[in-house]
Amino acid sequence: MKQKLTIVKIGGNVIDNPEALDTFLVDFSQLKGPKVLVHGGGKLASQKLKQMGIEPKMVDGRRITDEQTLEVIVMVYGGLINKNIVAQLQQLGNNALGLSGADMNSILAHKRPVREIDYGFAGDVDTVETENLDLLINNSVVPVFCPLTHDKKGQLLNTNADTIASQLAIGLSRSWSVDLVYCFEIKGVMKDMDKGIIFEEMNPATYEEARTTGLLTGGILPKLDNAFESLNQGVENVVICQADALKNWSGSNFEGTVLHL
Amino acid sequence: MKQKLTIVKIGGNVIDNPEALDTFLVDFSQLKGPKVLVHGGGKLASQKLKQMGIEPKMVDGRRITDEQTLEVIVMVYGGLINKNIVAQLQQLGNNALGLSGADMNSILAHKRPVREIDYGFAGDVDTVETENLDLLINNSVVPVFCPLTHDKKGQLLNTNADTIASQLAIGLSRSWSVDLVYCFEIKGVMKDMDKGIIFEEMNPATYEEARTTGLLTGGILPKLDNAFESLNQGVENVVICQADALKNWSGSNFEGTVLHL
Repeated sequence: MKQKLTIVKIGGNVIDNPEALDTFLVDFSQLKGPKVLVHGGGKLASQKLKQMGIEPKMVDGRRITDEQTLEVIVMVYGGLINKNIVAQLQQLGNNALGLSGADMNSILAHKRPVREIDYGFAGDVDTVETENLDLLINNSVVPVFCPLTHDKKGQLLNTNADTIASQLAIGLSRSWSVDLVYCFEIKGVMKDMDKGIIFEEMNPATYEEARTTGLLTGGILPKLDNAFESLNQGVENVVICQADALKNWSGSNFEGTVLHL
Repeated sequence: MKQKLTIVKIGGNVIDNPEALDTFLVDFSQLKGPKVLVHGGGKLASQKLKQMGIEPKMVDGRRITDEQTLEVIVMVYGGLINKNIVAQLQQLGNNALGLSGADMNSILAHKRPVREIDYGFAGDVDTVETENLDLLINNSVVPVFCPLTHDKKGQLLNTNADTIASQLAIGLSRSWSVDLVYCFEIKGVMKDMDKGIIFEEMNPATYEEARTTGLLTGGILPKLDNAFESLNQGVENVVICQADALKNWSGSNFEGTVLHL
């Protein structure tokens, strides 16, 4: 039987807020067993771009990563955010190791082909290399991934952190029974926004129903498509919850939406 | 018998010049056997500091690392330089892994105590943790260290890259027969500056002689003290050479100063 591995993705709103990040890292550090952290950082990147006199360029919430932008993103994701999280986790007793997809060729991607929009140095994931990750995780190392990949032709690429998390989860499912936890601003997948009620569980049938009745619309749909795709490719559970909920992860009072097949 | 491990340190002048760096990385990638790269990057850091409106502060060639400066240094060393070198080495067929001293708690340091000068967030090395490094190097991974350490209290620290290289060399000598190669702007330790003649070999006696006669003065002295200290603590050979010479490392036409006890 495969051992349990928990992969947690933490998004930009928490990264951007030092107090919220501190609290989150304490909660993450206390998770038992093998684990991996994936972080975003888009808001901080936009802030640093402006500080360096570069106007962030976005189309429908997606960043256009030109050469100048890539340079800043590599500094912010791979340096500033990643190394500080690693140092904080070390303090909290987790043997953290900061990684981009280039490190140990962990996540190989290709530059997104130009169709209607030229996203620049944006990477779409091809393969995830897990041999050395398995070795390190078995040795109590906690990998911390930033949202950068490479093409093995010397080019770093900017890759969506949700995608990094789901692709890592799929790859690591070869050796582990993976729970993938997306920590967002919201409590979970909303069933009734006015009353603040979430779906406690969701499977492809309940998802299909919520989609066709129009209960779910907008940005949550690609996230859920992505999540169910992970489940279809071997990930055990995908959970969507608020960062605050992580401290209750193993408890009976955990709040969040658990997706399964 | 311990297996040979080659640790190469590359300095700021090469890092700062994309063509020289490309050439150096090709030469480094072709070194046979287990190896580690340590890079500096002070010049690029100073450039980025200025770009962000922060005036670099130096005292006797040593950087004063205040909070703002540390942030930029973490971005430049840990992100920009380190991740790009890793991506380039991956292209060249080396399974590179970028590391700071915080990653896997590899290099633990403490903030330099304030005496006459407050160097700010400058770290003096305490211990080097090699268990996971040994594991990875044995698995053909090529660690690439940037000059950052941590104090295990959540604080990243700026640490001289020469020191990182020598401390890693000493630590890794527990499991490996280590050659430590410092790649500089100069051909080696100069015996006759006018004629461009270097010492081919140097031991503590010839060093002492060259120092007392006044042949060697200035910045080379602390470097050599550092180098002989590494030899005293178990490093097999320390070599000082130009980056260009690395391509001839295993050949009979290698030019550089080989230090030994």
